[in-house]
Amino acid sequence: MTSALKKRSKKAGLSPGTLIHIGNTYTEKSKITVIRYDENLFEKKEVSYADDLRGEKDKPGKVWINIDGLQDVALLENVGNLFGLHPLILEDILNTNQRPKIEDLTEYLYIVLRNFHHHETDTLYSEQVSIVLGKNFILSFQEKEGALFEPVRERLRSNKGKIRKAGSDYLVHALIDNVVDNYFILLEDMEERIEKLENDLVKQTSPAKLQSIHVLKRELIFLRKSLWPLRETISSLQRSDSPLIDEPNALYFKDIFDHIIAIIDTVDTFRDMLSGMLDVYLSSTSMKLNEVMKVLTIIATIFMPLTFLAGVYGMNFKYMPELEWPWGYFGVWVVMLTIALGMLKFFRRKQWF
Amino acid sequence: MTSALKKRSKKAGLSPGTLIHIGNTYTEKSKITVIRYDENLFEKKEVSYADDLRGEKDKPGKVWINIDGLQDVALLENVGNLFGLHPLILEDILNTNQRPKIEDLTEYLYIVLRNFHHHETDTLYSEQVSIVLGKNFILSFQEKEGALFEPVRERLRSNKGKIRKAGSDYLVHALIDNVVDNYFILLEDMEERIEKLENDLVKQTSPAKLQSIHVLKRELIFLRKSLWPLRETISSLQRSDSPLIDEPNALYFKDIFDHIIAIIDTVDTFRDMLSGMLDVYLSSTSMKLNEVMKVLTIIATIFMPLTFLAGVYGMNFKYMPELEWPWGYFGVWVVMLTIALGMLKFFRRKQWF
Amino acid sequence: MTSALKKRSKKAGLSPGTLIHIGNTYTEKSKITVIRYDENLFEKKEVSYADDLRGEKDKPGKVWINIDGLQDVALLENVGNLFGLHPLILEDILNTNQRPKIEDLTEYLYIVLRNFHHHETDTLYSEQVSIVLGKNFILSFQEKEGALFEPVRERLRSNKGKIRKAGSDYLVHALIDNVVDNYFILLEDMEERIEKLENDLVKQTSPAKLQSIHVLKRELIFLRKSLWPLRETISSLQRSDSPLIDEPNALYFKDIFDHIIAIIDTVDTFRDMLSGMLDVYLSSTSMKLNEVMKVLTIIATIFMPLTFLAGVYGMNFKYMPELEWPWGYFGVWVVMLTIALGMLKFFRRKQWF
Amino acid sequence: MTSALKKRSKKAGLSPGTLIHIGNTYTEKSKITVIRYDENLFEKKEVSYADDLRGEKDKPGKVWINIDGLQDVALLENVGNLFGLHPLILEDILNTNQRPKIEDLTEYLYIVLRNFHHHETDTLYSEQVSIVLGKNFILSFQEKEGALFEPVRERLRSNKGKIRKAGSDYLVHALIDNVVDNYFILLEDMEERIEKLENDLVKQTSPAKLQSIHVLKRELIFLRKSLWPLRETISSLQRSDSPLIDEPNALYFKDIFDHIIAIIDTVDTFRDMLSGMLDVYLSSTSMKLNEVMKVLTIIATIFMPLTFLAGVYGMNFKYMPELEWPWGYFGVWVVMLTIALGMLKFFRRKQWF
Amino acid sequence: MTSALKKRSKKAGLSPGTLIHIGNTYTEKSKITVIRYDENLFEKKEVSYADDLRGEKDKPGKVWINIDGLQDVALLENVGNLFGLHPLILEDILNTNQRPKIEDLTEYLYIVLRNFHHHETDTLYSEQVSIVLGKNFILSFQEKEGALFEPVRERLRSNKGKIRKAGSDYLVHALIDNVVDNYFILLEDMEERIEKLENDLVKQTSPAKLQSIHVLKRELIFLRKSLWPLRETISSLQRSDSPLIDEPNALYFKDIFDHIIAIIDTVDTFRDMLSGMLDVYLSSTSMKLNEVMKVLTIIATIFMPLTFLAGVYGMNFKYMPELEWPWGYFGVWVVMLTIALGMLKFFRRKQWF
Repeated sequence: MTSALKKRSKKAGLSPGTLIHIGNTYTEKSKITVIRYDENLFEKKEVSYADDLRGEKDKPGKVWINIDGLQDVALLENVGNLFGLHPLILEDILNTNQRPKIEDLTEYLYIVLRNFHHHETDTLYSEQVSIVLGKNFILSFQEKEGALFEPVRERLRSNKGKIRKAGSDYLVHALIDNVVDNYFILLEDMEERIEKLENDLVKQTSPAKLQSIHVLKRELIFLRKSLWPLRETISSLQRSDSPLIDEPNALYFKDIFDHIIAIIDTVDTFRDMLSGMLDVYLSSTSMKLNEVMKVLTIIATIFMPLTFLAGVYGMNFKYMPELEWPWGYFGVWVVMLTIALGMLKFFRRKQWF
Repeated sequence: MTSALKKRSKKAGLSPGTLIHIGNTYTEKSKITVIRYDENLFEKKEVSYADDLRGEKDKPGKVWINIDGLQDVALLENVGNLFGLHPLILEDILNTNQRPKIEDLTEYLYIVLRNFHHHETDTLYSEQVSIVLGKNFILSFQEKEGALFEPVRERLRSNKGKIRKAGSDYLVHALIDNVVDNYFILLEDMEERIEKLENDLVKQTSPAKLQSIHVLKRELIFLRKSLWPLRETISSLQRSDSPLIDEPNALYFKDIFDHIIAIIDTVDTFRDMLSGMLDVYLSSTSMKLNEVMKVLTIIATIFMPLTFLAGVYGMNFKYMPELEWPWGYFGVWVVMLTIALGMLKFFRRKQWF
Repeated sequence: MTSALKKRSKKAGLSPGTLIHIGNTYTEKSKITVIRYDENLFEKKEVSYADDLRGEKDKPGKVWINIDGLQDVALLENVGNLFGLHPLILEDILNTNQRPKIEDLTEYLYIVLRNFHHHETDTLYSEQVSIVLGKNFILSFQEKEGALFEPVRERLRSNKGKIRKAGSDYLVHALIDNVVDNYFILLEDMEERIEKLENDLVKQTSPAKLQSIHVLKRELIFLRKSLWPLRETISSLQRSDSPLIDEPNALYFKDIFDHIIAIIDTVDTFRDMLSGMLDVYLSSTSMKLNEVMKVLTIIATIFMPLTFLAGVYGMNFKYMPELEWPWGYFGVWVVMLTIALGMLKFFRRKQWF
Repeated sequence: MTSALKKRSKKAGLSPGTLIHIGNTYTEKSKITVIRYDENLFEKKEVSYADDLRGEKDKPGKVWINIDGLQDVALLENVGNLFGLHPLILEDILNTNQRPKIEDLTEYLYIVLRNFHHHETDTLYSEQVSIVLGKNFILSFQEKEGALFEPVRERLRSNKGKIRKAGSDYLVHALIDNVVDNYFILLEDMEERIEKLENDLVKQTSPAKLQSIHVLKRELIFLRKSLWPLRETISSLQRSDSPLIDEPNALYFKDIFDHIIAIIDTVDTFRDMLSGMLDVYLSSTSMKLNEVMKVLTIIATIFMPLTFLAGVYGMNFKYMPELEWPWGYFGVWVVMLTIALGMLKFFRRKQWF
Repeated sequence: MTSALKKRSKKAGLSPGTLIHIGNTYTEKSKITVIRYDENLFEKKEVSYADDLRGEKDKPGKVWINIDGLQDVALLENVGNLFGLHPLILEDILNTNQRPKIEDLTEYLYIVLRNFHHHETDTLYSEQVSIVLGKNFILSFQEKEGALFEPVRERLRSNKGKIRKAGSDYLVHALIDNVVDNYFILLEDMEERIEKLENDLVKQTSPAKLQSIHVLKRELIFLRKSLWPLRETISSLQRSDSPLIDEPNALYFKDIFDHIIAIIDTVDTFRDMLSGMLDVYLSSTSMKLNEVMKVLTIIATIFMPLTFLAGVYGMNFKYMPELEWPWGYFGVWVVMLTIALGMLKFFRRKQWF
């Protein structure tokens, strides 16, 4: 979020549609992968320049063009022009802090998704995935090169299921499904961390663990903030009356919708679990204070009267009859033990130990 | 939840409609029970293979096929094909972490419910119950063999009420009613635990009891998460314009709807009770700390001045006139008792004991 | 709630419409009161058997039949048959844990209300009141014999206002108005308890008072849970297009609606007051701890250095020059008093007392 | 609220429309002020009896009749009859615990407002202001005589703005605007109290200030409860299709609506400020406890070992070699100072002081 | 807010449309900047009197008149009359505590925005920006002279993008976009403060930091209160069917709408972060108390028994056999060390240090 805000504020005052890449740069060069497919066709190639894509839009069959890396603004502008994208859409592709959304520009649909993963160290990171669905073409844009869409490519290559037979909207469904499936993997990872934390807390509480709970909570809030607009987006797709979406495919988008609901449910459950852990943590802290204070009070209450008594018979008054008694010393011990045992009994009855 | 998430993430990247059983396996073999009934007819048999169900769909009368155990994917796929189920529906039947929902596929209605019970140990467990309502057939799928639907079978056998006369939608009503009735039994059990906990808390607080409150709270959240979509599901059924639901039977679904509202009310009441208990618990902890500290302060405040005084007359100065006085020792005792009683009076006035 | 849940779960598995009385039994025998009235007529009689009501439905004028006590299921079933009540409605009358609701069965309207009162001991108890409004008849069902509807009978007898002239819907309005007026009496009683508690808390806090706050809070939640559906019910009545409700009488139901809104407002105000009291209570507990600790710290901080000093001059070293000084003892006292006063000044400046 | 509830419950069981004054009585006699005005006319007179108002409704020009004091039920009943008010409306005028609302009775509009002020002592008090808007007459009812509507009378007299030219709905707008303007004065007063409290809290916390925060919070809740229905009322007026409201005047009601939104915003801001103050208050209490405990612990930790050491050399064993050493006493002092300084260094490193 | 409330309450009782400037006065004289532009035209001049604007409305091309400083009520009234503004709109321009809103008066649209910046010292301050969009003219009103709209002037002058070609609605879009971009700068600044505070809190907690968290929280609430109505305003603009807004420009307003959603998201994230920090802060305070108490208890528990023992052998009884033993003194030391080590072992096992 940090870097995005910083770069974003630099854009203040420029006219809308001015293309500036806002986000992190991961690769030196954008990578363009073109897959042309049909029921009987599968062609994959990598190209370097936007010009190599000229004409792809009008060839027979369907074409899926995936671009990894968004730092080459000129390249993306050219691609945008080739496929007739509106400047504001290109701006959204480049500003990688969009919320999930769908925009219907009649000629094509523009869909923004966010893909979450744990970046190098342990901080949760979200990458923007933009998808453009046209009549016979699909464009997908990722911030960095990765294996995210590999399973879809594999399904296309091996011609499993109806993916090659169905229209380009079905491919878009497959891409979104892939991103949503990634959430399940993320949640599984979080679940492990929560369970580990829960087990640790039973053993010992420490400020570091409190911090961990808050980090997890913040990650969940971060995640959730993306899930609600995603839910809306998929719901729009499902109920879309765009001719680009085949009526019968709505059922597939409903399937994704159900998955997202399940994910939101799980995120909420996790949040409730963390809140419960926090409560247990805090009340166990105050319980420990009670325990500590009881120890102190028991010790003080027993030894203060005894020390006083010893002090009394340590006084140097001339006339102190008890000091002369032969059984005086022994008697004092008896009194002291009686006091100590009486106190212990009192505390035992109060169930302090 | 755990296992479901783990198995679910393994499915990432597969095409939709790929059938994998996600959930626990309870039985070695799926059990298929076929009940054919009519106003004048009641036939019950158990079969082993999907092929044995061929033609059941088209025989006269109504047929209810119940399948316990979902691990035999091939069997379920065959059953699905025989009755014309969509692959995504079959996938939902097998992925046993669905939220309650209803889907209208024109030819048939697909209903998902969740049945809750306490599993072996004390953890709350929810089992997925899928029901398919067709023209003259009902399919029901449970994760494990159990007595859940026994009362309905009994009503069918004994021909009580209008269950055999009415259409297949009435049988579906009976099945759902049965599941919902189970919630009352569950709530009754929870009520007992809450009341026991409340009585225990009056006697003594302990971290274990705090934990119990949180476990109960989490179970209620878990339960509630299933109740809201169930409410929606039944409401959809009631207002359904599917020809599979007879208009006059809407009143029966309204009846179930009222039950669910009552259940949600009770769950909310329980949650409020637990929150109140938590508050009482936490404030009684801090009250006990106060009590402990008062004991300590009273003891310290009384004996510290006395011990100081004893210390003074234990000093070894050459010239200490008091030590020579004949009534010195007696006088010190008088002073000490005066101080002690003064302190006690002070604390009594402050209502510390 | 308890007993209702317990009895309710016994009903699990029975077919809907099976009549079982769920609730408490207060009287040995149901009491049936029949009032036939018209602009010029007022006849009141008590009957013992359902058969005595045969024909009442079709006589000229309007008839109001009130039944106290629901344990005689057979009697109620007969009454239900005489007036053409649906089995599910009869079931609702008998299951006395319904939420307030209205159901329009074209021939008649079925209305459920809840009447609250403090039962014997101090626990808040709610009784179900069912009203059936037909063309020329009104049926009302109470769980136990009581004076609840006495004011309405009185108004009928004395022919005050337009109650005898107006239709049977106006009588239903009078009955509901009566129940709602009872809420004001209940609230007044609660207000007294809250004010008493507030005054008590100023004087002294104790766990028992904390408990009282929570009991009151729970009662308010219990009450509120019934008020929202009641609000909906009256709103439905007011906007009803049933021919059983005269258009001009809508204004009277609007009047009740306003009363309920006022009641909900008051309940919310009470809840806010209790929350505020709880906050004050808890923070005053922690404030008292502070006070206790200050006393302890002041005492300890003053006497510990002094006792130490006394201890030093109680040592038995051979060579301790101070002990020989003629003004040694006096000097020590001066030092001690200086320390004590310095400490007191320090605490005074810290505003500890 | 108190007295209203008490009087309200006495009304239980009476028929609706029975006129009883519920509320406080401020004046001995109701005061009736009649203002007849037109573009060129301004006549003001005070009358004593309802009969003096006969015919006022039908004279040319517009008439505004203001009645202060509601205890004279007979008078109000007569006024109501003269202007054709429905008994239930009269009842609402007399029961001075209505929420702000508007009722459209075709012939006239009935509007309830609440005017807040601090009553004698510092408790927030709300007075009911009822307005009836007819074709050429306006009736306004206040609980007590006051200067509330003086500015409107002044504007009428001095013929400022369009108030005399515009219809009677514009006068109603002026009356409501006047009441709403009073809220700003109230808020300004509250703001001062909040700021004073905030400044005080920085200096010193005390239970009395905690109480003040809660009193302010409760007043805000009390105020807010009235503002939401007021918002609804004005919104209804603005969107009203009653012929009594001139279409172009809707803009003026929109203006009041915006004021109310601003007031609600301010009330919410105040509430957030008070919540923040409460948080600061509570955490500063616990911070002070920490401070107190640190003082105690530092003192105890330094002097307990020293006192122990002094005690050791105060023992009377025959054979204690250190006591014979010439530098023994001096050595003990060195050891003691070393311990004390070591402890202080330890606490300094822990940043305890 | 303060000053606004104070001045606002002075207005109570005046007729609506009475023009009084409510807000702060920053400049001595209002500054009027007139920019006339067209595809081929850019003229900028500054004028001093409202009369200098006569006729500007009807000249060819589009004109943008910006007025900085609102204290000259007469000037603004004249400007209002020249451009046909309704008195209530003029009143809104002058009362600078409006919430963001849009009003469609057919002839022109009136839009209120709020511009936030940190005023001199560190307090967040919001300035009202009013925009009037007419057929061929745009009026903008700011409370004080500033560089807020400089980037838009620069874009007009340099003829970048379509700003000079497009209609006056596009200029309004540019102005609003400019204000919204400023929010990003504000958020960036807040983010830095939050991160600094978070880092500081790890090192040391103090009441001043607690105060800082609350100040930030209040600023966020203050900001958020303006963002929600802003969201509504832009949404209205986007969906507006006013002929003043060109259909295709809706996409540009949708762009701003997305920005506002992102800003609200960020504000919510900040709020969650601050709440988390507060939680960590408070629980670390209570954790520190535990630590302090453990130190005290360890010290007291070790030295109290030892001091007691030393006291015992400091007693002056005639007959105390241990005192005569040759190894008595040594033996006491052994006993004392055993006790001390045993205590330490006990605390170590309890994991207290």
